Amino acid sequence: MLKLDHIEEMLEKALEEKDVKKIRSISKEFQFVDFAEAMEQFESKKVLKIFRLLELEEAAEIFTYLDSEHQEYIIEAFTNTEIQEILDELYTDDIIDLIDEMPSEVVKKILKATTKDVRKELNNILKYKEHTAGAIMSINFTELKADNTVEMAIKAIKRRHDDYDEIDDLFIIDEHNKLLGWIELKQLLINSPKTKLGTVMNSKIVNVNVEMDQEEVANYFKRYDINTLPVVNKNQQLVGIITVDDVIDVLVEESTEDIQNFAGIDADDVESDYFETSIFKMYKSRVVWLSILLLIGVITHVIMLLMFNLVEGLKDLPSGKEVIMMIPILIVLAGVSGNIANQSSLMMIRSLALNQVHKKEIKTIFGKELLVGFLLGITLAFINVIRLLIIYAVQEGGTINHSEWMVILFSTLGILVVVMLANLLGILLPLLLKKIKKDPTIASSPLITSLVDILCVLVFIGFALIIV
Amino acid sequence: MLKLDHIEEMLEKALEEKDVKKIRSISKEFQFVDFAEAMEQFESKKVLKIFRLLELEEAAEIFTYLDSEHQEYIIEAFTNTEIQEILDELYTDDIIDLIDEMPSEVVKKILKATTKDVRKELNNILKYKEHTAGAIMSINFTELKADNTVEMAIKAIKRRHDDYDEIDDLFIIDEHNKLLGWIELKQLLINSPKTKLGTVMNSKIVNVNVEMDQEEVANYFKRYDINTLPVVNKNQQLVGIITVDDVIDVLVEESTEDIQNFAGIDADDVESDYFETSIFKMYKSRVVWLSILLLIGVITHVIMLLMFNLVEGLKDLPSGKEVIMMIPILIVLAGVSGNIANQSSLMMIRSLALNQVHKKEIKTIFGKELLVGFLLGITLAFINVIRLLIIYAVQEGGTINHSEWMVILFSTLGILVVVMLANLLGILLPLLLKKIKKDPTIASSPLITSLVDILCVLVFIGFALIIV
Repeated sequence: MLKLDHIEEMLEKALEEKDVKKIRSISKEFQFVDFAEAMEQFESKKVLKIFRLLELEEAAEIFTYLDSEHQEYIIEAFTNTEIQEILDELYTDDIIDLIDEMPSEVVKKILKATTKDVRKELNNILKYKEHTAGAIMSINFTELKADNTVEMAIKAIKRRHDDYDEIDDLFIIDEHNKLLGWIELKQLLINSPKTKLGTVMNSKIVNVNVEMDQEEVANYFKRYDINTLPVVNKNQQLVGIITVDDVIDVLVEESTEDIQNFAGIDADDVESDYFETSIFKMYKSRVVWLSILLLIGVITHVIMLLMFNLVEGLKDLPSGKEVIMMIPILIVLAGVSGNIANQSSLMMIRSLALNQVHKKEIKTIFGKELLVGFLLGITLAFINVIRLLIIYAVQEGGTINHSEWMVILFSTLGILVVVMLANLLGILLPLLLKKIKKDPTIASSPLITSLVDILCVLVFIGFALIIV
Repeated sequence: MLKLDHIEEMLEKALEEKDVKKIRSISKEFQFVDFAEAMEQFESKKVLKIFRLLELEEAAEIFTYLDSEHQEYIIEAFTNTEIQEILDELYTDDIIDLIDEMPSEVVKKILKATTKDVRKELNNILKYKEHTAGAIMSINFTELKADNTVEMAIKAIKRRHDDYDEIDDLFIIDEHNKLLGWIELKQLLINSPKTKLGTVMNSKIVNVNVEMDQEEVANYFKRYDINTLPVVNKNQQLVGIITVDDVIDVLVEESTEDIQNFAGIDADDVESDYFETSIFKMYKSRVVWLSILLLIGVITHVIMLLMFNLVEGLKDLPSGKEVIMMIPILIVLAGVSGNIANQSSLMMIRSLALNQVHKKEIKTIFGKELLVGFLLGITLAFINVIRLLIIYAVQEGGTINHSEWMVILFSTLGILVVVMLANLLGILLPLLLKKIKKDPTIASSPLITSLVDILCVLVFIGFALIIV
C-alpha cells in the first residue's frame, strides 16, 4: 500500500508546517477511505488535530471510514455543536453503523446532537433486528407517484439530491405508500418532460420484506443482478432501500462467518476485523467446540480401551504400558490440535485476503495468539485431567494407580504444549507462504493436519518415553 | 422456491393448451432468472419449444440465465439466423461468458453468427487472461468529452442507451482516450443543458488496469463503495467498465475458491455449480492433497515405529502385536478421513448456501459422492499398500512377515471402508441439519473430526481384533 505511506508522509509534513490549506487539499485529492486509513497511523491527538482542520464535508465523509476507536475519540473530544455539524452531513444508515459500534455514553452524546426528526428516523431503523433487511436498509430515498410527470421527478431530484443515498433507480408508490414499480434514472433523460411516470415504469419488481435475513437479501442481489432493492413492510409499503455497495459488505461478512462457523469459531464473538477482537473474545469464540471435541473424545477413548482389553498381549504388558495408555489420548489430541491450527490459519488467511494485516501488526498477532493458545491449552488440559480421572476411576473401580497418575500428568502437559504450538503453526504457515509470495490458502487443512500429526506424536510419545 | 413450481405449472399448462400468448405473458410477468430456472425443469425438447415461442427480447434475456447444457442444446438446434438474432440482443460480456462455457464446435457456430464488428470486440476481450479485469469488463459504455455539454451527453444517451450495459456513472476522456474523470448520471438532470461536462465532473477517480486480478478488482469495489469501475490500459486509456453486479459473482466465486483450496480441493477443477462437475474432476480435485497427506504420514509412522522400538515391553509382545502395528496407520488415517469428510461437507454447505441443491437432486449427490469416495478410497488404499511395503521391507531388511501382510491387507481394506463412509458422512451431516432447520455450518470441522475419529477407531481396531 504505497499510496497510504505517501499520504501519511504528506500529512506529517503539512502538519509540521501548520499548512492547513495543504491538509485540506490532500483530503480532496485522495479517496476518503485512503485518507482515513493513512490518518489512523498517527497518534490519537494528531488524528484529532488533522480532523479539526478539515472542511466539514470532507470531515464527515472521512469520519465514516475511521475505525471505531478513532471515531469514539473524536466524538468524546468534540463539542455538541461540532458533532451536530458532522451528523447533519451523514446519511442515517451511517449514523446507525456508528451507534452500533459505540459504548452507551457515546451513543447518548450522539443522539443528543441529532435533531428530533433524525432521532425519529433512527428509532425507526433501530427497531429492526440485527442482520435483517430493516437493519441494513437506508431510508434516504425519494417517493414518486405514478401520475407524477418526468418533469416533476426531475424537480424533486434537483431539490433533494443531496439527501439521497442512491438515485440510480427510482421507486413509484401509490397513495397508500404501496410499492407499484420502478424506473431507471436514465428514463428521466430519455422521455419527454410531460410523460407520466406510470406509463414508463417497470412494474416487474423485486422487493424484500423488512424482516428478511441479510444473507437472503444478498442472495437477491446475486440472483437478480440489481443495484437497488426496495424494502417493504408486511402491507407492501415502501419503507427503505438497500444499495448494492452495502450488500457487498454483507456478502463478505457472511462468507467470513460461514468459514468461522465451520472451523468451530463462534462468529458472533469475533469482530469483522481481527485486531478489534479482544483476547478473551477470541478465546471464547473457539473454546466451546474444542472442548466438545475433547469431550466426545471420551467415546473414542473408551472404545479403544475396551478393544485393547480384548487383546491378551496388551492386558498385562511387562513394561511400556504407559505408551499404550497414551495412544487413545494422542488420537483425540491429534484431532483437537488439527482443528486449533485450522482455526488460527483460517483467521489469518481471511485477514490476509481482506487486507487487514500490515507489517507492523505481525508482532501483535503473535503476542495475541500466544496468549489465546495458552488460555485454550489450559482449558483443554483441565478438561483432559477431569476426563482421564473419570475414565481411570471407573476402569479401576475407584482407585488410580501410579502409571495412570503419570499418564494424566504428562498427557496434560503434552496437551498444553501441543495446543500452543499448533495455534502458532496455524498463524505462521499462511504468513510464511505470503512472505515467499505463494497463495496463503495453500496452507490447506491437509498440510496442517500432517504437520500437527507429527508434532503430536513427537511430544506425546516423547513424554511417554520419559515415563517408561 | 414455491414461485418456481408455480411458473413451471403455468408453463406446463400453457404448453398443453398451445397458448403462445400465455407463455409470452408469463415471460414478461416474472423475473427472467426465475423463468429460466423453471424452464430448465422440463426436458430439453420442451425447453426448446418454449424458447422458440418467446419474443426476441425476452428470449435473449432468458437465454443468458439458462445453464450451459441448455444453452448448448438451443444453439445446436437453432439456425444461423436465429442465433444471430439472439446474439444481437446480448451485451459482449454475456457473449464472452457463453463462449467460455461452450465446446469449440459450438463456439465456431456462435462466432460465425456474429457480425464482423462484434467479432472484433470479442477478440479484444478474449485476449485478456482469465480472472483479470480485462476478462470480466464490459465494453458497452459511452465515451464523453470534457468539452461536451450536458445537452450533448443527454442526446448521446438517448441515441445509444440500448447499447449501454450501465450508465449510472459516465466517464469523461480526452482526445487520446485518456480517462479524465467521471460524473454521476444525476448531474445531467441537475445541471443546465449548456454546462460543460468538464466543469461538473469529478476528477478524483478510482480505476484499475486491464491486467489486475479479479479478486483485487473486487477489493476495490469493497474499499471504495463504487458502482462502476473504469478499466484502463497501460496508457491510462479507457478500455472498459466493470459493474458492481459482475463483481458480486466474482466475490462469491473467490470465497468459494478460498474455502475449497483450504480444504485441499483444487478449485480449478471444480465448476462453480456442484452438478456441472464430473465425477472424475471431483476426484481429481481432491486426490492430490489427500495423497500428499497420506505420504507425509510416512514420517509420523516412522517416528512412532522408532519410539515404539525404544520401549522394551512393546518390542516382543507375546500377542497383539498387530494392534500396535495398526496404530500409526490409524493416526494418519484419522487425519486423512477427517479431511475427506471436511471436503465433502464444505462442498455441500457451500452448495446449500448458494441455493444450488433442490430436493430431487439429493439422490444424484449420493450416487456421485459414493463413486467419488470409492475412487478416492481405492487410490489411498493403493498408496497405503506401497508405503507399508516400503516401511516394513526397510524395517525387516527386505522380508515381510505374516503379521505384516495381515496388517497391510486389513489396514488397506479399512482405509477403503473408512474413506467412503467419511465422505458420505460429510454430505449427510449438513443435509440432516438443513432438514431439521438448523444452520448447516454447525456441521463444523470439530464435530466431523469427532465422528470420524470414532469411525476410524471402530473399523481399525475392529479389523485388528480379527487378525489377533
